[in-house]
Amino acid sequence: MAMEKTLWKHIQSLKHRSPLVHNISNYVVMNNTANALLAVGASPVMAHAQSEVREMVQIASSLVINIGTLDEYWHQSMLTAAETAHTSGKAWVLDPVGAGATPYRNTVLQELLQFRPTVIRGNASEIAALANTHQSSTKGVDSTVESHTAIDDAHVLSRAYQAVVCISGATDIIIDEQRIFYISNGHPLMGKVTGLGCTASALVAAMLGVVEDKTEATVAAMALLGVAGELAEQQSKGPGSLQVNLLDKLYSMTDNEFYAYIKCTPQ
Amino acid sequence: MAMEKTLWKHIQSLKHRSPLVHNISNYVVMNNTANALLAVGASPVMAHAQSEVREMVQIASSLVINIGTLDEYWHQSMLTAAETAHTSGKAWVLDPVGAGATPYRNTVLQELLQFRPTVIRGNASEIAALANTHQSSTKGVDSTVESHTAIDDAHVLSRAYQAVVCISGATDIIIDEQRIFYISNGHPLMGKVTGLGCTASALVAAMLGVVEDKTEATVAAMALLGVAGELAEQQSKGPGSLQVNLLDKLYSMTDNEFYAYIKCTPQ
Amino acid sequence: MAMEKTLWKHIQSLKHRSPLVHNISNYVVMNNTANALLAVGASPVMAHAQSEVREMVQIASSLVINIGTLDEYWHQSMLTAAETAHTSGKAWVLDPVGAGATPYRNTVLQELLQFRPTVIRGNASEIAALANTHQSSTKGVDSTVESHTAIDDAHVLSRAYQAVVCISGATDIIIDEQRIFYISNGHPLMGKVTGLGCTASALVAAMLGVVEDKTEATVAAMALLGVAGELAEQQSKGPGSLQVNLLDKLYSMTDNEFYAYIKCTPQ
Repeated sequence: MAMEKTLWKHIQSLKHRSPLVHNISNYVVMNNTANALLAVGASPVMAHAQSEVREMVQIASSLVINIGTLDEYWHQSMLTAAETAHTSGKAWVLDPVGAGATPYRNTVLQELLQFRPTVIRGNASEIAALANTHQSSTKGVDSTVESHTAIDDAHVLSRAYQAVVCISGATDIIIDEQRIFYISNGHPLMGKVTGLGCTASALVAAMLGVVEDKTEATVAAMALLGVAGELAEQQSKGPGSLQVNLLDKLYSMTDNEFYAYIKCTPQ
Repeated sequence: MAMEKTLWKHIQSLKHRSPLVHNISNYVVMNNTANALLAVGASPVMAHAQSEVREMVQIASSLVINIGTLDEYWHQSMLTAAETAHTSGKAWVLDPVGAGATPYRNTVLQELLQFRPTVIRGNASEIAALANTHQSSTKGVDSTVESHTAIDDAHVLSRAYQAVVCISGATDIIIDEQRIFYISNGHPLMGKVTGLGCTASALVAAMLGVVEDKTEATVAAMALLGVAGELAEQQSKGPGSLQVNLLDKLYSMTDNEFYAYIKCTPQ
Repeated sequence: MAMEKTLWKHIQSLKHRSPLVHNISNYVVMNNTANALLAVGASPVMAHAQSEVREMVQIASSLVINIGTLDEYWHQSMLTAAETAHTSGKAWVLDPVGAGATPYRNTVLQELLQFRPTVIRGNASEIAALANTHQSSTKGVDSTVESHTAIDDAHVLSRAYQAVVCISGATDIIIDEQRIFYISNGHPLMGKVTGLGCTASALVAAMLGVVEDKTEATVAAMALLGVAGELAEQQSKGPGSLQVNLLDKLYSMTDNEFYAYIKCTPQ
């Protein structure tokens, strides 16, 4: 129970401290990401202009960079933001959407990795592509393989960049240089709602704004989203209502609900 | 009943084959479009960077270009994507949002037409403007006239570009060089939800990824959306809940529901 | 009761006259803004291309400029649109999202103010930053202070630019050079839904398309949103369902509901 209590304490910290989370994200998910951050108690800001991106990183508690709908302008903004976070010791999350789908994405991702993301979160196809081992497995932005197939790739990335790596899927796997955690929450219907992976990355960034241990922060964010999704699905008739109910549940989840559903096992 | 059975078979194909649909679309609708594609079983990818747009067209099953919030950069990306689709024989859908509203839109659309869209889907004002016959009838992005007023324009476009043309409205009209189909599903409240025309175009693109006959593919997509909208409206209190219920119904529609509601008549 | 009847008459005008509202807004909120405009009877168009922004301002009834996710390209489009509105006597609303957060935002806002917005709507932090008095009080895009703390700043802005100024918050305060109105509707949960301030600005722009008195137009729009939010919250389980129910209520609100809830007091 000790682990679960610690995670719930972290979830409560979000509400009490309301960290400002800077999002450089994609057009598809910005609305839902902002709403998810508000629902858990964080304060989102979306800003990508090269004329202000440095200042925005400085005033935020943490940063998330999501390359979903990148182009050459956003590419430069992402590099500037990542560099600013890196040099000022600010925690940042890399969400390598569609890694492996095109050479351009791979190039941008290798550049971003040089600025040492605190956490890397992607599906198994993306994590594998990022580690340069199975570049052919990506189909657009959805994973074609299961989380555990990318564990070796996650270890490679974690060691190379001193990052926490989270492989999300039916089971979420969180890896750092010493530890590995498995979270078996969530529901398959969540795969029919666009951008819940992006939401996960944003929640990890939020948690990094209030929790010192970056691995625990990642586990807490993934557990929160997984349990909320599982509870929300029970009241949903399909992916439309799941998207709505998930925001409600991120906002209203009780400690009893969290403790009754959380399935997190360290190895 | 033969026609209805064929359409339902096409709808099932989407779920079984999960085509990757490349969207170059507008900021307003990207989230809902992605969710609608996921709900029917397709796999959406949104990508517009000139550094990767060619590769993304190549790996996708089909493409949709929607000019809703275009600018000069997106204009070039759209031309490159359309050209790539054209030269590689990939099916693509043109959604001429706001055709006729400004000279710039008309110019971009004429350029895109040179790359021979497989299907053109718009409201009556847009189809008329695209055929250069009634350029003054567009009010922003909403149609000011009924579907049947644009039938002659649709024939002009269909012959000029060997395209299937779909005029959407209270009655959806699908025209190719030989045939014409009328679909009388849907509900007026759908006009109060932004971007359902864009969703229609994306569903047509998805269907083109799994159905050989491009006219049948268009009819199947429009029928699916119309029936889902009609069923969803029965459970809705306004446009907000309709947007949510529509996604649920696109995901959960049964064959019995489809057969009970579909009103499609070939002429 | 005279004031309330006038406001309701204005709300009805939106449905009857369906003004075309040109939005140059941010990526986070475009979908919800468009849906809110459709729900109240207006016709939204989102367009920012420098190749068409002048023409789009000309054909629209009114314009809203929202700097939420601005960059250098959008900055130029905003200036061109504001200048076109100013020189052609078209009403426009300035939503100074994140004013005070970065020097870039402040620079852009000072440039936009030269084109005399008809109405300025922001939260207290933004209004204060815009008046150059408390630049340090902004935290990202959410206000850190209450509406009444910015009343002096609003008066400064109103006098300097002959604009109506609306400070939104728990109490919305609408100020012009002679009058001041207080609206005490809405619900705290609305702060957990992203972009309802942006929705407010868009509704003000819609109302300016049908109401001569610009202060009354602003009061009517804010009252409509506040009452709808209050009614919608009663049926909501959290911010996700509130976002949905709000659109339903903007669409379906009756005169009896409006009269029973409206709390608007002129001073």
